[in-house]
Amino acid sequence: MSLSLNQRTTRRWSVAQAVDGCVRHGLEAIGLWREEVAEQGLAASARLVRAAGLRVSSLCRGGFLTGAPSRTASSTASRAPSRATSGGPSRAALDDNRRAIDEAAELGAACLVLVVGGLPGVVPGEPLAGFSRDLAGARERVAEALAVLAPYAGERNVRLALEPLHPLYCPDRAVVSTLGQAIDLALPYPVEQVGVVVDTFHVWWDPQVFEQIARAGERIASYQVCDYLHPLPADVLLGRGMMGDGVIDFPPITRAVLAAGYTGDVEVEIFNAEVWAADPDDVVATMKRRYADVVS
Amino acid sequence: MSLSLNQRTTRRWSVAQAVDGCVRHGLEAIGLWREEVAEQGLAASARLVRAAGLRVSSLCRGGFLTGAPSRTASSTASRAPSRATSGGPSRAALDDNRRAIDEAAELGAACLVLVVGGLPGVVPGEPLAGFSRDLAGARERVAEALAVLAPYAGERNVRLALEPLHPLYCPDRAVVSTLGQAIDLALPYPVEQVGVVVDTFHVWWDPQVFEQIARAGERIASYQVCDYLHPLPADVLLGRGMMGDGVIDFPPITRAVLAAGYTGDVEVEIFNAEVWAADPDDVVATMKRRYADVVS
Repeated sequence: MSLSLNQRTTRRWSVAQAVDGCVRHGLEAIGLWREEVAEQGLAASARLVRAAGLRVSSLCRGGFLTGAPSRTASSTASRAPSRATSGGPSRAALDDNRRAIDEAAELGAACLVLVVGGLPGVVPGEPLAGFSRDLAGARERVAEALAVLAPYAGERNVRLALEPLHPLYCPDRAVVSTLGQAIDLALPYPVEQVGVVVDTFHVWWDPQVFEQIARAGERIASYQVCDYLHPLPADVLLGRGMMGDGVIDFPPITRAVLAAGYTGDVEVEIFNAEVWAADPDDVVATMKRRYADVVS
Repeated sequence: MSLSLNQRTTRRWSVAQAVDGCVRHGLEAIGLWREEVAEQGLAASARLVRAAGLRVSSLCRGGFLTGAPSRTASSTASRAPSRATSGGPSRAALDDNRRAIDEAAELGAACLVLVVGGLPGVVPGEPLAGFSRDLAGARERVAEALAVLAPYAGERNVRLALEPLHPLYCPDRAVVSTLGQAIDLALPYPVEQVGVVVDTFHVWWDPQVFEQIARAGERIASYQVCDYLHPLPADVLLGRGMMGDGVIDFPPITRAVLAAGYTGDVEVEIFNAEVWAADPDDVVATMKRRYADVVS
């Protein structure tokens, strides 16, 4: 396994700057984000990483497949979960994910990370309004979307990587909440078409994590590391910390991922106001040191 | 099933006031807290609930069995989880839990809720310092403590109720994070000695929740309801909302608990700044209405 910089860890850097940063710090791989790739230009981004000899350990992200809320869904009554949202994932969401797959193919990314989406109509950071409480339905919609997207990805040699998110984000970001659940969703498809992400922040607490990492085996498409801070900041999305700054005991998880047969890169993905405010070169240097001291 | 007021929902009320409130609003049961019971006096509290003809649906809470941190535990290095904390639960924690069991017996409580504790030395709301990252060890310590406390509870006809808490609270409050894990810990003991709590806030996101509620069967010692707010407030402990104000679809969970054979009370336990600021009589009235509309 070797270290990869997820570019959102050094958020101020463009794709070009992040590629240069990786080379300067002797990293062999980078995780890219679609928004930054679009700013740089897709073809230009692909040229930059190739010219630098970097692997693209992942492209973040596709997903948000759980659909829009029904206009009739009440925000206070939960008796009748909306059926208006049960007609499968929206065409717009599928189209966007097909574009993401095309981008991953052009970038030669090892996988396209899928953050599947939360309850229909629940918006991160915004008060509840016009949403659906039909969690089971939202989870079905993810399975339906995969049935459409997996073959499309397979034809383009792109591997989809389902990311279970910490249950904290179940309302607004991902109704896939455990590694076991992600594996269940991936199982119907060839291992090279649909894999799973093991991200320490999301799975460290799970009593089944070691058993599920072993079960995932070759399905592990990406291993991402960052720490779980305590206390969490007011914006819980920014609770991801530099390895060693939080509560996670990394070595047992790293050993389990290795034992499962994972040979890919280890991506460091940190969303954190202090990290983002720091000099990106210092962040990469700290990341390398902490990876050696705390993770590997 | 009938509705019970957990007294922390009406936090300003003493035991005497909460007992009066339950009677005034036609409730048959109350959930008590040890701190408020101590303020009122244990014997006086027992007399008050008996004179009012109320059931005590639970006493909150015992637990915090995962031990103190080792003084040598580093806050930044995770290589060597402290072994100094692995000598079993502390004598002080066990003594306190024996007192809690005695109190539950005197109050005639249906169960003593156990919030098992987080990583040794991690303090709610406080920055990390001198703690242990040994999650597996903390979980073992809970099992060791149960082996001591379950027989003690059994001799006094008190039922321990293991409460899995949302994974959000794994660092500081409960290393028991799923219903399945709580059942596993309870299984070695007679069903009347160790049960589990199903609290909607803590379990609603769990892909296995329906399967685990069915598996729990007679082990369900308490069913607690409140909603999961979105977005969460800055103090995540106060993310519990009035039923209908958050994202939880209650009826499927309530039906599953009923189908599992649960015939006890349904306790409403809300930690929420706005609810605590409101007139307690209004809160109880709203709770009754929402219970009828949204939960049952």
